[in-house]
Amino acid sequence: MKDVVLVKLGGSLITNKSVPYSVRSDVLKRLAKELHEARGNQKIIVGHGGGSFPHVSAHKYRTNEGLINDESCRGFAEVQNDASKLNRIVVQALLDAGENAVSVQPSALCIARNGKIENFDTKVIEKLLEHDFLPVPFGDAALDNERGCCIISTEEIFTHLAKKLDVKRIILVGKVDGVFNGDPENKNSKLIPEITQKNYKEVKRHLSGSDATDVTGGMLNKVEKMAELSKKGIQISIINGLVPGNLKRSMLGENIGTIIK
Amino acid sequence: MKDVVLVKLGGSLITNKSVPYSVRSDVLKRLAKELHEARGNQKIIVGHGGGSFPHVSAHKYRTNEGLINDESCRGFAEVQNDASKLNRIVVQALLDAGENAVSVQPSALCIARNGKIENFDTKVIEKLLEHDFLPVPFGDAALDNERGCCIISTEEIFTHLAKKLDVKRIILVGKVDGVFNGDPENKNSKLIPEITQKNYKEVKRHLSGSDATDVTGGMLNKVEKMAELSKKGIQISIINGLVPGNLKRSMLGENIGTIIK
Repeated sequence: MKDVVLVKLGGSLITNKSVPYSVRSDVLKRLAKELHEARGNQKIIVGHGGGSFPHVSAHKYRTNEGLINDESCRGFAEVQNDASKLNRIVVQALLDAGENAVSVQPSALCIARNGKIENFDTKVIEKLLEHDFLPVPFGDAALDNERGCCIISTEEIFTHLAKKLDVKRIILVGKVDGVFNGDPENKNSKLIPEITQKNYKEVKRHLSGSDATDVTGGMLNKVEKMAELSKKGIQISIINGLVPGNLKRSMLGENIGTIIK
Repeated sequence: MKDVVLVKLGGSLITNKSVPYSVRSDVLKRLAKELHEARGNQKIIVGHGGGSFPHVSAHKYRTNEGLINDESCRGFAEVQNDASKLNRIVVQALLDAGENAVSVQPSALCIARNGKIENFDTKVIEKLLEHDFLPVPFGDAALDNERGCCIISTEEIFTHLAKKLDVKRIILVGKVDGVFNGDPENKNSKLIPEITQKNYKEVKRHLSGSDATDVTGGMLNKVEKMAELSKKGIQISIINGLVPGNLKRSMLGENIGTIIK
Protein backbone atom coordinates (compact mmCIF):
# COMPACT_ATOMS: atom_id res chain seq x y z
CA MET A 1 0.00 0.00 0.00
CA LYS A 2 1.79 3.13 -1.26
CA ASP A 3 1.65 6.81 -0.34
CA VAL A 4 -0.86 6.60 2.48
CA VAL A 5 -1.79 9.87 4.23
CA LEU A 6 -2.79 9.77 7.89
CA VAL A 7 -4.97 12.62 9.15
CA LYS A 8 -5.74 13.15 12.82
CA LEU A 9 -8.65 15.29 13.91
CA GLY A 10 -7.75 16.32 17.46
CA GLY A 11 -10.16 15.56 20.28
CA SER A 12 -10.04 19.14 21.58
CA LEU A 13 -10.73 20.41 18.07
CA ILE A 14 -13.86 18.40 17.29
CA THR A 15 -15.29 18.43 20.82
CA ASN A 16 -15.55 21.06 23.48
CA LYS A 17 -13.20 19.63 26.07
CA SER A 18 -14.71 21.58 28.95
CA VAL A 19 -18.25 20.22 28.39
CA PRO A 20 -18.66 16.40 28.55
CA TYR A 21 -20.06 14.78 25.38
CA SER A 22 -20.22 18.00 23.38
CA VAL A 23 -19.26 17.98 19.72
CA ARG A 24 -18.24 21.07 17.75
CA SER A 25 -20.57 20.03 14.95
CA ASP A 26 -19.85 23.01 12.71
CA VAL A 27 -16.08 22.45 12.89
CA LEU A 28 -16.43 18.70 12.32
CA LYS A 29 -18.76 19.24 9.35
CA ARG A 30 -16.39 21.75 7.77
CA LEU A 31 -13.33 19.54 8.25
CA ALA A 32 -15.15 16.56 6.71
CA LYS A 33 -16.05 18.74 3.70
CA GLU A 34 -12.47 20.04 3.31
CA LEU A 35 -11.10 16.51 3.51
CA HIS A 36 -13.54 15.28 0.89
CA GLU A 37 -12.79 18.21 -1.44
CA ALA A 38 -9.00 17.82 -1.20
CA ARG A 39 -8.88 14.06 -1.23
CA GLY A 40 -8.72 13.17 -4.89
CA ASN A 41 -7.18 9.72 -5.33
CA GLN A 42 -5.16 9.83 -2.12
CA LYS A 43 -5.27 6.79 0.18
CA ILE A 44 -6.31 8.33 3.48
CA ILE A 45 -6.89 7.12 7.03
CA VAL A 46 -8.64 9.57 9.37
CA GLY A 47 -8.05 9.04 13.08
CA HIS A 48 -9.55 11.15 15.79
CA GLY A 49 -9.04 11.85 19.46
CA GLY A 50 -11.74 11.39 22.08
CA GLY A 51 -11.96 14.89 23.51
CA SER A 52 -14.72 15.38 26.02
CA PHE A 53 -16.25 11.96 25.29
CA PRO A 54 -13.92 9.38 26.88
CA HIS A 55 -11.69 11.75 28.80
CA VAL A 56 -14.06 12.13 31.75
CA SER A 57 -14.42 8.36 32.27
CA ALA A 58 -10.73 7.74 31.49
CA HIS A 59 -9.78 10.28 34.17
CA LYS A 60 -12.33 9.00 36.70
CA TYR A 61 -11.22 5.35 36.42
CA ARG A 62 -7.53 6.12 35.69
CA THR A 63 -7.85 3.72 32.75
CA ASN A 64 -4.37 4.46 31.45
CA GLU A 65 -2.88 3.15 34.70
CA GLY A 66 -4.35 -0.31 34.08
CA LEU A 67 -6.62 -2.71 35.92
CA ILE A 68 -5.74 -1.23 39.30
CA ASN A 69 -8.91 -1.78 41.36
CA ASP A 70 -12.44 -3.28 41.40
CA GLU A 71 -13.79 -0.45 39.28
CA SER A 72 -11.19 -0.70 36.52
CA CYS A 73 -13.14 -3.12 34.29
CA ARG A 74 -16.21 -0.92 34.57
CA GLY A 75 -14.01 2.00 33.62
CA PHE A 76 -12.59 0.22 30.57
CA ALA A 77 -16.11 -0.58 29.33
CA GLU A 78 -17.30 3.00 29.83
CA VAL A 79 -14.24 4.54 28.17
CA GLN A 80 -14.61 2.23 25.16
CA ASN A 81 -18.31 3.08 24.89
CA ASP A 82 -17.61 6.82 25.16
CA ALA A 83 -14.84 6.67 22.55
CA SER A 84 -17.08 4.72 20.16
CA LYS A 85 -19.93 7.20 20.66
CA LEU A 86 -17.79 10.00 19.27
CA ASN A 87 -16.53 7.72 16.50
CA ARG A 88 -20.12 7.21 15.30
CA ILE A 89 -20.56 10.99 15.08
CA VAL A 90 -17.29 11.47 13.17
CA VAL A 91 -18.06 8.62 10.76
CA GLN A 92 -21.54 10.05 10.17
CA ALA A 93 -20.05 13.49 9.39
CA LEU A 94 -17.61 11.93 6.91
CA LEU A 95 -20.38 9.87 5.28
CA ASP A 96 -22.49 13.03 5.01
CA ALA A 97 -19.58 14.78 3.29
CA GLY A 98 -19.49 12.03 0.68
CA GLU A 99 -16.71 9.79 1.99
CA ASN A 100 -17.16 6.02 2.31
CA ALA A 101 -15.98 6.19 5.91
CA VAL A 102 -15.71 2.95 7.90
CA SER A 103 -15.06 2.68 11.65
CA VAL A 104 -12.08 0.63 12.73
CA GLN A 105 -12.35 -0.09 16.46
CA PRO A 106 -8.81 -0.12 17.92
CA SER A 107 -9.80 -1.92 21.14
CA ALA A 108 -11.09 -4.87 19.06
CA LEU A 109 -7.86 -5.05 17.05
CA CYS A 110 -4.99 -3.98 19.28
CA ILE A 111 -3.34 -5.42 22.32
CA ALA A 112 -0.82 -3.18 24.06
CA ARG A 113 2.10 -3.66 26.41
CA ASN A 114 2.82 -0.83 28.81
CA GLY A 115 0.78 1.59 26.77
CA LYS A 116 2.40 0.75 23.42
CA ILE A 117 0.62 -1.32 20.78
CA GLU A 118 2.10 -4.83 20.63
CA ASN A 119 -0.39 -6.60 18.32
CA PHE A 120 -2.39 -4.87 15.62
CA ASP A 121 -3.58 -6.78 12.60
CA THR A 122 -3.88 -4.21 9.80
CA LYS A 123 -5.24 -6.60 7.14
CA VAL A 124 -8.73 -5.08 7.20
CA ILE A 125 -7.36 -1.51 7.03
CA GLU A 126 -5.17 -2.42 4.05
CA LYS A 127 -8.11 -4.01 2.25
CA LEU A 128 -10.30 -0.98 3.00
CA LEU A 129 -7.65 1.29 1.48
CA GLU A 130 -7.40 -0.92 -1.62
CA HIS A 131 -11.10 -0.28 -2.23
CA ASP A 132 -10.76 3.48 -1.53
CA PHE A 133 -12.71 3.37 1.70
CA LEU A 134 -11.75 5.86 4.41
CA PRO A 135 -10.84 3.83 7.53
CA VAL A 136 -11.56 5.74 10.75
CA PRO A 137 -9.70 4.50 13.86
CA PHE A 138 -9.70 6.56 17.05
CA GLY A 139 -8.14 7.07 20.45
CA ASP A 140 -9.51 4.19 22.52
CA ALA A 141 -9.06 1.98 25.55
CA ALA A 142 -7.05 -1.17 24.86
CA LEU A 143 -6.19 -4.35 26.70
CA ASP A 144 -2.58 -4.36 27.87
CA ASN A 145 -0.45 -7.45 28.47
CA GLU A 146 1.39 -5.74 31.29
CA ARG A 147 -1.04 -3.34 33.03
CA GLY A 148 -4.31 -5.03 32.06
CA CYS A 149 -5.52 -2.01 30.13
CA CYS A 150 -4.41 1.39 28.88
CA ILE A 151 -5.37 4.26 26.62
CA ILE A 152 -4.01 4.25 23.08
CA SER A 153 -3.90 7.61 21.35
CA THR A 154 -4.38 8.21 17.64
CA GLU A 155 -0.65 9.10 17.47
CA GLU A 156 0.20 5.66 18.91
CA ILE A 157 -2.09 4.05 16.32
CA PHE A 158 -0.45 6.10 13.55
CA THR A 159 3.00 5.07 14.80
CA HIS A 160 2.00 1.45 14.42
CA LEU A 161 0.34 1.99 11.03
CA ALA A 162 3.54 3.66 9.82
CA LYS A 163 5.36 0.39 10.53
CA LYS A 164 2.96 -1.65 8.42
CA LEU A 165 1.95 0.73 5.61
CA ASP A 166 3.94 2.94 3.27
CA VAL A 167 2.93 6.26 4.87
CA LYS A 168 3.86 9.43 2.96
CA ARG A 169 2.40 12.14 5.17
CA ILE A 170 0.78 12.69 8.53
CA ILE A 171 -1.39 15.73 9.20
CA LEU A 172 -2.24 16.46 12.83
CA VAL A 173 -5.15 18.86 12.94
CA GLY A 174 -5.52 20.63 16.28
CA LYS A 175 -6.66 23.98 17.55
CA VAL A 176 -3.34 25.83 17.63
CA ASP A 177 -1.38 27.02 14.60
CA GLY A 178 1.40 24.48 15.12
CA VAL A 179 4.31 24.01 17.52
CA PHE A 180 5.29 27.16 19.42
CA ASN A 181 8.45 28.01 21.31
CA GLY A 182 6.31 28.74 24.39
CA ASP A 183 2.67 28.90 25.50
CA PRO A 184 0.65 29.42 22.29
CA GLU A 185 -1.64 31.78 24.27
CA ASN A 186 1.31 34.05 25.05
CA LYS A 187 1.82 36.80 22.46
CA ASN A 188 5.60 36.55 22.75
CA SER A 189 5.58 32.89 21.69
CA LYS A 190 6.52 32.23 18.10
CA LEU A 191 5.41 29.48 15.74
CA ILE A 192 8.21 27.09 14.77
CA PRO A 193 7.63 26.59 11.01
CA GLU A 194 9.96 23.62 10.67
CA ILE A 195 11.37 21.01 13.02
CA THR A 196 14.34 19.04 11.73
CA GLN A 197 17.16 17.10 13.35
CA LYS A 198 18.97 20.44 13.61
CA ASN A 199 16.57 22.25 15.94
CA TYR A 200 14.84 19.23 17.50
CA LYS A 201 16.63 19.36 20.87
CA GLU A 202 15.99 23.08 21.20
CA VAL A 203 12.28 22.61 20.39
CA LYS A 204 12.00 19.86 22.99
CA ARG A 205 13.31 22.24 25.65
CA HIS A 206 10.55 24.72 24.78
CA LEU A 207 7.75 22.23 25.22
CA SER A 208 6.41 21.16 28.54
CA GLY A 209 2.77 20.19 27.88
CA SER A 210 -0.31 21.08 25.85
CA ASP A 211 -2.73 23.83 26.80
CA ALA A 212 -5.26 21.41 28.30
CA THR A 213 -4.80 18.28 30.39
CA ASP A 214 -4.91 15.30 28.07
CA VAL A 215 -4.59 11.69 29.20
CA THR A 216 -2.80 10.82 25.96
CA GLY A 217 -0.07 13.41 26.47
CA GLY A 218 0.37 16.94 25.20
CA MET A 219 2.37 18.59 22.46
CA LEU A 220 5.78 17.36 23.66
CA ASN A 221 4.57 13.77 23.40
CA LYS A 222 3.16 14.45 19.92
CA VAL A 223 6.38 16.05 18.69
CA GLU A 224 8.51 13.22 20.08
CA LYS A 225 6.36 10.54 18.41
CA MET A 226 6.26 12.47 15.13
CA ALA A 227 10.01 13.25 15.09
CA GLU A 228 10.59 9.52 15.39
CA LEU A 229 8.33 8.91 12.37
CA SER A 230 9.98 11.65 10.33
CA LYS A 231 13.14 9.50 10.36
CA LYS A 232 11.31 7.07 8.04
CA GLY A 233 10.93 9.87 5.50
CA ILE A 234 7.36 10.70 6.50
CA GLN A 235 6.55 14.42 6.41
CA ILE A 236 4.40 15.58 9.33
CA SER A 237 2.28 18.74 9.40
CA ILE A 238 0.77 20.15 12.59
CA ILE A 239 -1.96 22.60 11.64
CA ASN A 240 -4.84 24.61 13.10
CA GLY A 241 -8.19 23.15 12.11
CA LEU A 242 -10.13 26.09 13.53
CA VAL A 243 -8.92 28.15 10.55
CA PRO A 244 -11.23 27.38 7.62
CA GLY A 245 -9.36 26.02 4.62
CA ASN A 246 -6.24 24.92 6.51
CA LEU A 247 -6.90 21.19 6.26
CA LYS A 248 -7.74 21.44 2.57
CA ARG A 249 -4.64 23.54 1.81
CA SER A 250 -2.40 21.20 3.80
CA MET A 251 -3.84 18.14 2.06
CA LEU A 252 -3.21 19.80 -1.31
CA GLY A 253 0.46 20.14 -0.35
CA GLU A 254 0.79 23.68 0.97
CA ASN A 255 3.26 24.13 3.82
CA ILE A 256 1.29 25.60 6.70
CA GLY A 257 1.61 25.25 10.46
CA THR A 258 4.66 23.34 11.65
CA ILE A 259 6.36 20.83 9.38
CA ILE A 260 8.42 18.05 10.96
CA LYS A 261 10.83 16.36 8.60
CA MET B 1 -11.30 -20.57 27.76
CA LYS B 2 -13.82 -23.04 29.21
CA ASP B 3 -17.61 -23.25 29.27
CA VAL B 4 -18.38 -20.13 27.27
CA VAL B 5 -22.05 -19.31 26.68
CA LEU B 6 -23.04 -17.45 23.50
CA VAL B 7 -26.30 -15.50 23.60
CA LYS B 8 -27.83 -13.97 20.49
CA LEU B 9 -30.44 -11.24 20.77
CA GLY B 10 -32.32 -11.40 17.47
CA GLY B 11 -32.53 -8.31 15.31
CA SER B 12 -36.31 -8.65 14.91
CA LEU B 13 -36.63 -9.02 18.68
CA ILE B 14 -34.77 -5.89 19.77
CA THR B 15 -35.87 -3.69 16.86
CA ASN B 16 -39.14 -3.20 15.07
CA LYS B 17 -38.25 -4.63 11.67
CA SER B 18 -41.03 -2.79 9.87
CA VAL B 19 -39.86 0.68 11.04
CA PRO B 20 -36.28 1.69 10.08
CA TYR B 21 -33.98 2.52 13.02
CA SER B 22 -36.55 1.72 15.71
CA VAL B 23 -35.45 -0.08 18.87
CA ARG B 24 -37.81 -1.99 21.15
CA SER B 25 -36.24 -0.25 24.14
CA ASP B 26 -38.45 -1.93 26.76
CA VAL B 27 -37.64 -5.42 25.45
CA LEU B 28 -33.93 -4.65 25.18
CA LYS B 29 -33.83 -3.21 28.69
CA ARG B 30 -35.62 -6.24 30.16
CA LEU B 31 -33.37 -8.73 28.34
CA ALA B 32 -30.26 -6.89 29.57
CA LYS B 33 -31.61 -7.09 33.12
CA GLU B 34 -32.46 -10.80 32.83
CA LEU B 35 -29.01 -11.54 31.44
CA HIS B 36 -27.32 -9.64 34.25
CA GLU B 37 -29.43 -11.36 36.92
CA ALA B 38 -28.82 -14.87 35.58
CA ARG B 39 -25.21 -14.43 34.66
CA GLY B 40 -23.33 -15.33 37.84
CA ASN B 41 -19.77 -16.41 37.01
CA GLN B 42 -20.58 -17.58 33.50
CA LYS B 43 -18.31 -16.47 30.65
CA ILE B 44 -20.75 -14.92 28.22
CA ILE B 45 -20.60 -13.34 24.77
CA VAL B 46 -23.72 -11.47 23.66
CA GLY B 47 -24.18 -11.08 19.92
CA HIS B 48 -27.06 -9.31 18.28
CA GLY B 49 -28.68 -9.01 14.87
CA GLY B 50 -29.16 -5.74 13.07
CA GLY B 51 -32.92 -5.73 12.60
CA SER B 52 -34.29 -2.54 11.12
CA PHE B 53 -30.93 -0.73 11.41
CA PRO B 54 -28.69 -2.20 8.67
CA HIS B 55 -31.30 -4.24 6.84
CA VAL B 56 -32.67 -1.33 4.82
CA SER B 57 -29.23 -0.28 3.53
CA ALA B 58 -28.12 -3.92 3.11
CA HIS B 59 -31.19 -4.58 0.97
CA LYS B 60 -30.87 -1.33 -1.01
CA TYR B 61 -27.19 -1.91 -1.92
CA ARG B 62 -27.42 -5.75 -2.05
CA THR B 63 -24.35 -5.77 0.21
CA ASN B 64 -24.42 -9.54 0.67
CA GLU B 65 -23.91 -10.00 -3.08
CA GLY B 66 -20.56 -8.22 -2.93
CA LEU B 67 -18.95 -5.23 -4.60
CA ILE B 68 -21.20 -5.48 -7.64
CA ASN B 69 -21.48 -1.87 -8.84
CA ASP B 70 -20.35 1.74 -8.29
CA GLU B 71 -22.62 2.11 -5.28
CA SER B 72 -21.40 -1.00 -3.45
CA CYS B 73 -18.65 0.70 -1.44
CA ARG B 74 -21.09 3.39 -0.34
CA GLY B 75 -23.45 0.60 0.65
CA PHE B 76 -20.81 -1.21 2.69
CA ALA B 77 -20.00 1.99 4.60
CA GLU B 78 -23.66 2.71 5.31
CA VAL B 79 -24.44 -0.86 6.40
CA GLN B 80 -21.45 -0.86 8.76
CA ASN B 81 -22.50 2.49 10.22
CA ASP B 82 -26.10 1.31 10.67
CA ALA B 83 -25.00 -1.96 12.32
CA SER B 84 -22.69 -0.08 14.69
CA LYS B 85 -25.43 2.41 15.59
CA LEU B 86 -27.57 -0.40 16.98
CA ASN B 87 -24.52 -1.92 18.67
CA ARG B 88 -24.02 1.31 20.65
CA ILE B 89 -27.62 1.12 21.87
CA VAL B 90 -27.28 -2.55 22.88
CA VAL B 91 -23.96 -1.96 24.67
CA GLN B 92 -25.47 1.02 26.50
CA ALA B 93 -28.44 -1.10 27.65
CA LEU B 94 -26.07 -3.81 28.94
CA LEU B 95 -23.89 -1.23 30.70
CA ASP B 96 -27.01 0.26 32.28
CA ALA B 97 -28.01 -3.21 33.51
CA GLY B 98 -24.64 -3.51 35.28
CA GLU B 99 -22.61 -5.51 32.75
CA ASN B 100 -19.13 -4.45 31.67
CA ALA B 101 -20.17 -4.75 28.05
CA VAL B 102 -17.58 -4.03 25.35
CA SER B 103 -18.27 -3.73 21.61
CA VAL B 104 -16.34 -6.02 19.30
CA GLN B 105 -16.68 -4.77 15.72
CA PRO B 106 -16.75 -7.81 13.40
CA SER B 107 -15.98 -5.82 10.24
CA ALA B 108 -12.70 -4.66 11.81
CA LEU B 109 -11.72 -8.20 12.78
CA CYS B 110 -13.11 -10.58 10.18
CA ILE B 111 -12.41 -11.21 6.55
CA ALA B 112 -14.82 -13.56 4.79
CA ARG B 113 -14.73 -15.73 1.68
CA ASN B 114 -18.03 -16.27 -0.09
CA GLY B 115 -19.99 -15.16 2.96
CA LYS B 116 -18.14 -17.40 5.43
CA ILE B 117 -15.59 -16.02 7.88
CA GLU B 118 -12.06 -16.95 6.79
CA ASN B 119 -9.95 -14.83 9.19
CA PHE B 120 -11.05 -13.83 12.67
CA ASP B 121 -8.50 -13.11 15.35
CA THR B 122 -10.24 -13.88 18.65
CA LYS B 123 -7.35 -12.85 20.95
CA VAL B 124 -9.10 -9.72 22.19
CA ILE B 125 -12.36 -11.59 22.82
CA GLU B 126 -10.51 -14.27 24.80
CA LYS B 127 -8.74 -11.64 26.90
CA LEU B 128 -12.02 -9.80 27.50
CA LEU B 129 -13.57 -13.06 28.75
CA GLU B 130 -10.60 -13.71 31.05
CA HIS B 131 -11.36 -10.40 32.78
CA ASP B 132 -15.13 -11.12 32.91
CA PHE B 133 -16.05 -8.46 30.41
CA LEU B 134 -19.08 -9.11 28.24
CA PRO B 135 -17.92 -8.93 24.59
CA VAL B 136 -20.68 -7.76 22.23
CA PRO B 137 -20.17 -8.63 18.53
CA PHE B 138 -23.00 -8.17 16.05
CA GLY B 139 -24.27 -8.95 12.56
CA ASP B 140 -22.20 -6.71 10.32
CA ALA B 141 -20.86 -6.07 6.85
CA ALA B 142 -17.47 -7.69 6.19
CA LEU B 143 -14.84 -7.60 3.49
CA ASP B 144 -14.85 -10.77 1.41
CA ASN B 145 -11.86 -12.22 -0.45
CA GLU B 146 -14.12 -13.57 -3.18
CA ARG B 147 -17.07 -11.20 -3.54
CA GLY B 148 -15.48 -8.03 -2.19
CA CYS B 149 -17.96 -7.78 0.67
CA CYS B 150 -20.79 -9.66 2.33
CA ILE B 151 -23.03 -9.71 5.39
CA ILE B 152 -21.95 -11.86 8.32
CA SER B 153 -24.68 -12.88 10.70
CA THR B 154 -24.30 -13.38 14.44
CA GLU B 155 -24.79 -17.12 13.81
CA GLU B 156 -21.81 -17.10 11.41
CA ILE B 157 -19.76 -15.28 14.07
CA PHE B 158 -20.85 -17.82 16.70
CA THR B 159 -19.91 -20.68 14.35
CA HIS B 160 -16.42 -19.25 14.11
CA LEU B 161 -16.17 -18.55 17.86
CA ALA B 162 -17.17 -22.16 18.52
CA LYS B 163 -14.07 -23.26 16.57
CA LYS B 164 -11.76 -21.14 18.71
CA LEU B 165 -13.34 -21.20 22.18
CA ASP B 166 -14.69 -23.99 24.35
CA VAL B 167 -18.37 -23.14 23.93
CA LYS B 168 -20.82 -24.95 26.20
CA ARG B 169 -24.14 -23.46 25.20
CA ILE B 170 -25.70 -21.17 22.62
CA ILE B 171 -28.99 -19.39 23.32
CA LEU B 172 -30.73 -17.83 20.33
CA VAL B 173 -33.31 -15.36 21.59
CA GLY B 174 -35.94 -14.49 19.00
CA LYS B 175 -39.59 -13.59 18.92
CA VAL B 176 -41.11 -17.03 18.40
CA ASP B 177 -41.27 -19.83 20.98
CA GLY B 178 -38.75 -21.98 19.14
CA VAL B 179 -38.70 -24.13 16.00
CA PHE B 180 -42.16 -25.11 14.70
CA ASN B 181 -43.22 -27.83 12.29
CA GLY B 182 -44.90 -25.13 10.16
CA ASP B 183 -45.68 -21.40 10.14
CA PRO B 184 -45.49 -20.31 13.82
CA GLU B 185 -48.47 -18.00 13.17
CA ASN B 186 -50.61 -21.01 12.19
CA LYS B 187 -52.51 -22.51 15.13
CA ASN B 188 -52.04 -26.03 13.77
CA SER B 189 -48.25 -25.70 13.90
CA LYS B 190 -46.55 -27.37 16.83
CA LEU B 191 -43.38 -26.44 18.66
CA ILE B 192 -40.58 -28.99 18.25
CA PRO B 193 -39.13 -29.23 21.79
CA GLU B 194 -36.00 -31.12 20.76
CA ILE B 195 -34.01 -31.53 17.57
CA THR B 196 -31.50 -34.38 17.51
CA GLN B 197 -29.84 -36.41 14.77
CA LYS B 198 -32.97 -38.59 14.84
CA ASN B 199 -35.55 -36.02 13.74
CA TYR B 200 -33.21 -33.52 12.01
CA LYS B 201 -34.10 -34.47 8.42
CA GLU B 202 -37.82 -34.32 9.19
CA VAL B 203 -37.45 -30.89 10.82
CA LYS B 204 -35.56 -29.58 7.81
CA ARG B 205 -38.44 -30.57 5.55
CA HIS B 206 -40.82 -28.51 7.71
CA LEU B 207 -38.79 -25.34 7.45
CA SER B 208 -38.73 -23.08 4.46
CA GLY B 209 -37.92 -19.62 5.88
CA SER B 210 -38.51 -17.28 8.80
CA ASP B 211 -41.64 -15.16 9.19
CA ALA B 212 -39.92 -11.98 7.94
CA THR B 213 -37.45 -11.41 5.12
CA ASP B 214 -33.96 -11.46 6.56
CA VAL B 215 -30.79 -10.94 4.55
CA THR B 216 -28.92 -13.29 6.88
CA GLY B 217 -31.31 -16.17 6.28
CA GLY B 218 -34.33 -17.47 8.15
CA MET B 219 -34.99 -20.29 10.59
CA LEU B 220 -33.84 -23.09 8.26
CA ASN B 221 -30.44 -21.44 7.97
CA LYS B 222 -30.29 -21.01 11.76
CA VAL B 223 -31.21 -24.64 12.44
CA GLU B 224 -28.69 -25.93 9.90
CA LYS B 225 -25.86 -23.86 11.39
CA MET B 226 -26.83 -24.83 14.94
CA ALA B 227 -27.24 -28.54 14.15
CA GLU B 228 -23.70 -28.47 12.82
CA LEU B 229 -22.48 -26.92 16.10
CA SER B 230 -24.42 -29.42 18.21
CA LYS B 231 -22.10 -32.11 16.81
CA LYS B 232 -19.31 -30.54 18.89
CA GLY B 233 -21.34 -31.22 22.03
CA ILE B 234 -22.71 -27.68 22.26
CA GLN B 235 -26.31 -27.46 23.46
CA ILE B 236 -28.40 -24.90 21.59
CA SER B 237 -31.62 -23.32 22.86
CA ILE B 238 -33.96 -21.33 20.62
CA ILE B 239 -36.29 -19.30 22.83
CA ASN B 240 -38.85 -16.49 22.73
CA GLY B 241 -37.46 -13.29 24.21
CA LEU B 242 -40.82 -11.53 24.11
CA VAL B 243 -41.89 -13.70 27.07
CA PRO B 244 -40.56 -12.07 30.24
CA GLY B 245 -38.30 -14.39 32.21
CA ASN B 246 -37.49 -16.76 29.33
CA LEU B 247 -33.89 -15.62 28.86
CA LYS B 248 -33.20 -15.73 32.58
CA ARG B 249 -34.75 -19.21 32.97
CA SER B 250 -32.86 -20.53 29.95
CA MET B 251 -29.58 -19.08 31.22
CA LEU B 252 -30.21 -20.75 34.58
CA GLY B 253 -30.49 -24.10 32.79
CA GLU B 254 -34.22 -24.63 32.31
CA ASN B 255 -35.21 -26.41 29.08
CA ILE B 256 -37.54 -24.04 27.28
CA GLY B 257 -38.20 -23.42 23.61
CA THR B 258 -36.44 -25.76 21.22
CA ILE B 259 -33.28 -27.56 22.26
CA ILE B 260 -30.86 -28.73 19.58
CA LYS B 261 -28.39 -31.34 20.72
